[in-house]
Amino acid sequence: MDAAPDPHRYAIVDLIRRKRDCGTWTPDEARWIINAFTAGIVADEQMSALAMAVFFRGMAPAELDAWTEAMIATGSRLDYSGLGRPTADKHSTGGVGDKITLPLTPLVAACGVAVPQLSGRGLGHTGGTLDKLDSIPGWRSDLPPARVRAQLEDVGGVIVAAGPDLAPADRKLYALRDVTGTVESIPLIASSIMSKKIAEGTGTLVLDVKVGSGAFMKDIDRARTLAETMVRLGTRAGVRTTALLTDMDTPLGLTAGNALEVGEALEVLAGGGPADVVDLTLALAREMLAGAGVDADPAEVLASGRAMDRWRRLVRAQGGDPDAPLPVAREHETLTAESDGVIGGVDALGVGLAAWHLGAGRARKEDQVQAGAGIQLHVRPGDRVRTGQRLVTLHTDTPERFEAARRALAGAVTLLGPEGHVDERPLVLGRVTADDIR
Amino acid sequence: MDAAPDPHRYAIVDLIRRKRDCGTWTPDEARWIINAFTAGIVADEQMSALAMAVFFRGMAPAELDAWTEAMIATGSRLDYSGLGRPTADKHSTGGVGDKITLPLTPLVAACGVAVPQLSGRGLGHTGGTLDKLDSIPGWRSDLPPARVRAQLEDVGGVIVAAGPDLAPADRKLYALRDVTGTVESIPLIASSIMSKKIAEGTGTLVLDVKVGSGAFMKDIDRARTLAETMVRLGTRAGVRTTALLTDMDTPLGLTAGNALEVGEALEVLAGGGPADVVDLTLALAREMLAGAGVDADPAEVLASGRAMDRWRRLVRAQGGDPDAPLPVAREHETLTAESDGVIGGVDALGVGLAAWHLGAGRARKEDQVQAGAGIQLHVRPGDRVRTGQRLVTLHTDTPERFEAARRALAGAVTLLGPEGHVDERPLVLGRVTADDIR
Repeated sequence: MDAAPDPHRYAIVDLIRRKRDCGTWTPDEARWIINAFTAGIVADEQMSALAMAVFFRGMAPAELDAWTEAMIATGSRLDYSGLGRPTADKHSTGGVGDKITLPLTPLVAACGVAVPQLSGRGLGHTGGTLDKLDSIPGWRSDLPPARVRAQLEDVGGVIVAAGPDLAPADRKLYALRDVTGTVESIPLIASSIMSKKIAEGTGTLVLDVKVGSGAFMKDIDRARTLAETMVRLGTRAGVRTTALLTDMDTPLGLTAGNALEVGEALEVLAGGGPADVVDLTLALAREMLAGAGVDADPAEVLASGRAMDRWRRLVRAQGGDPDAPLPVAREHETLTAESDGVIGGVDALGVGLAAWHLGAGRARKEDQVQAGAGIQLHVRPGDRVRTGQRLVTLHTDTPERFEAARRALAGAVTLLGPEGHVDERPLVLGRVTADDIR
Repeated sequence: MDAAPDPHRYAIVDLIRRKRDCGTWTPDEARWIINAFTAGIVADEQMSALAMAVFFRGMAPAELDAWTEAMIATGSRLDYSGLGRPTADKHSTGGVGDKITLPLTPLVAACGVAVPQLSGRGLGHTGGTLDKLDSIPGWRSDLPPARVRAQLEDVGGVIVAAGPDLAPADRKLYALRDVTGTVESIPLIASSIMSKKIAEGTGTLVLDVKVGSGAFMKDIDRARTLAETMVRLGTRAGVRTTALLTDMDTPLGLTAGNALEVGEALEVLAGGGPADVVDLTLALAREMLAGAGVDADPAEVLASGRAMDRWRRLVRAQGGDPDAPLPVAREHETLTAESDGVIGGVDALGVGLAAWHLGAGRARKEDQVQAGAGIQLHVRPGDRVRTGQRLVTLHTDTPERFEAARRALAGAVTLLGPEGHVDERPLVLGRVTADDIR
């Protein structure tokens, strides 16, 4: 942060009321709110009322620009311009079975682009990349900035938690929003994500904005607005930013859980894995490479095994053992088809909640997750099944949780009659680039 | 309060989000919110976000009933049923020059109805009844409950501040709303007023809901909604409640200030005073008497001098000297007409702000008010004036404030040409009774 904010420069109650009554803040007012909140001049109860007013009234572009810049300026902004190669990062707004960061980071690194991948832990029914990686014996995500940079130079990719000096205003504001019902606001979500991503110093950013039952955004219009808002903020800050809108009505791949998803990511890196995980990994890799100006074919690099080699180097560099067996849950239970038919759909929210009930996710920030817990799907929408065929396997260390998970899954896997037909749904529903927001 | 609330009975974030997303609370949930907030289980930052959500989404009748009942139950509820005569109280939502409580309380007491009048101090441009009374040498408003009751038996009227045990949840919530921009919400205003008025134990309550530039409610529709909401809450709690909607585009009477308004109230009690102050005093007295079931003509009682006698007893009972001269400001300044013409209007907000600038009101709760400061009007809308004729006199102990007051008054008194005509406006714009809300 620059100088300490003047406590008397503005009256916060007037600024709250103006937002509440459809007015806008000047850029200087928006900056002052963030700085005064970070300095403790604006009290938590004032900031939460203000956040609720923003939930209802939104923010104009000029307000949001100043607000986001101020959040970035409360911490340090990293600079990888001296790294000797372009940088690119990906951010997903969160979904069920979304393990894409795991194959994507080494794949893009193997194509010659450095990937300073900031990731988070999960809360609720969507998993967190860092929770998944923690299931690798020895793995650590809390590297100091010098180690991050060294690993970017050496391995070309790193997957870490955001450090405490990256947009600390966002950390404070997010903790407050979390307990005051003010998370679900497009400008607040966009500025939270983008302040950290801009501060982390990436040259290119690709956003994977999830849409559907298992995602934060349930409808495509709100998802597109969020994508456009973030692309505008990134572009304005000099980051080449694009966004894909991708389907999250159905889970990604066939696993939801921590070690289970790492296992599936390894299949992809080995040249196999579910088609949707492979396709989305390649689609996001192409966006990152295009933004970074690197002409490489990620499908070829994946097939060559070079992405897997890079993965093993990345895991070792972060203390993990790429050859250690992954944790397995102590108990499992299998659900089977009660009649012949065609799988009509697999609901992402139901699967995510079931995995969460089994111990893969946390209800509160301080909860522990089970590395082996989660859901394994044996079918995809459109698959033909026979009576008694396996549909889903549930994994947990705590079998008393099976019942809650079965309840969450009830109705999540729908079975049509034997003549049922399911249209294939596209995975990528839209794309937003800087050209769309001019 | 009954038992301590169970902290785990509900998740406050879910209740905030439900309100935010247009849902409603069960009565038990609404009660729990108030009790958990009072007990410190619901944090200030959660309650302020919730209050902002209520600002946008309102409350359904069943929610507001339970919410208000819970606020009352956090303190004690007084009971004057053994007093031997009916009780009636008046509440005004606040306006400029509103000194009605001063003549009204002794007038209704002189008609045989006991008046346990709770009043407040002023904040911003509207004055507070207790600040006005404080300009009487010796006066005190902080009487213990036993003294209040004894004075009701003896004098038949008392004007006091709400004690700390009357709806303490409201005290805590109002302090929070004041600093978080969440004051202006009809259900929150209605429950704040009515929780105290119901707890104070009056049998009849008459609400004076002000409408216009100098009032909290600028338009009649919102004022009517507020009146209906309060009448419903009072009726439901067994208090005979009616409301008058009255004009506050123009100040009441010819004075705005503390001692200045006491002086004008004395004129009314002496059988004189401005017609609008007399008319509104009589209109509200008739409502109180009707609610209390007492058949008396307040105009006759006022003319007989018995209201003035009662006033003198009331002032003495509360430590004041009814014969002591009222404080006078050290400095005054007079504004005169710059041309011949007809007074088109006198804007209540401009007059209120000018009185506030002169020292009659406070900007913050801890500020002192000047007893002698304020505005004296020499004209009313429709009056014909000549060049140089006095329009307004400004009073203050601190002459450096004249300039700010003159700025606030600029445009407040409009002068039409000599042929100008002003339609007479009704003072009482509407009436709401229990019959209207069934």
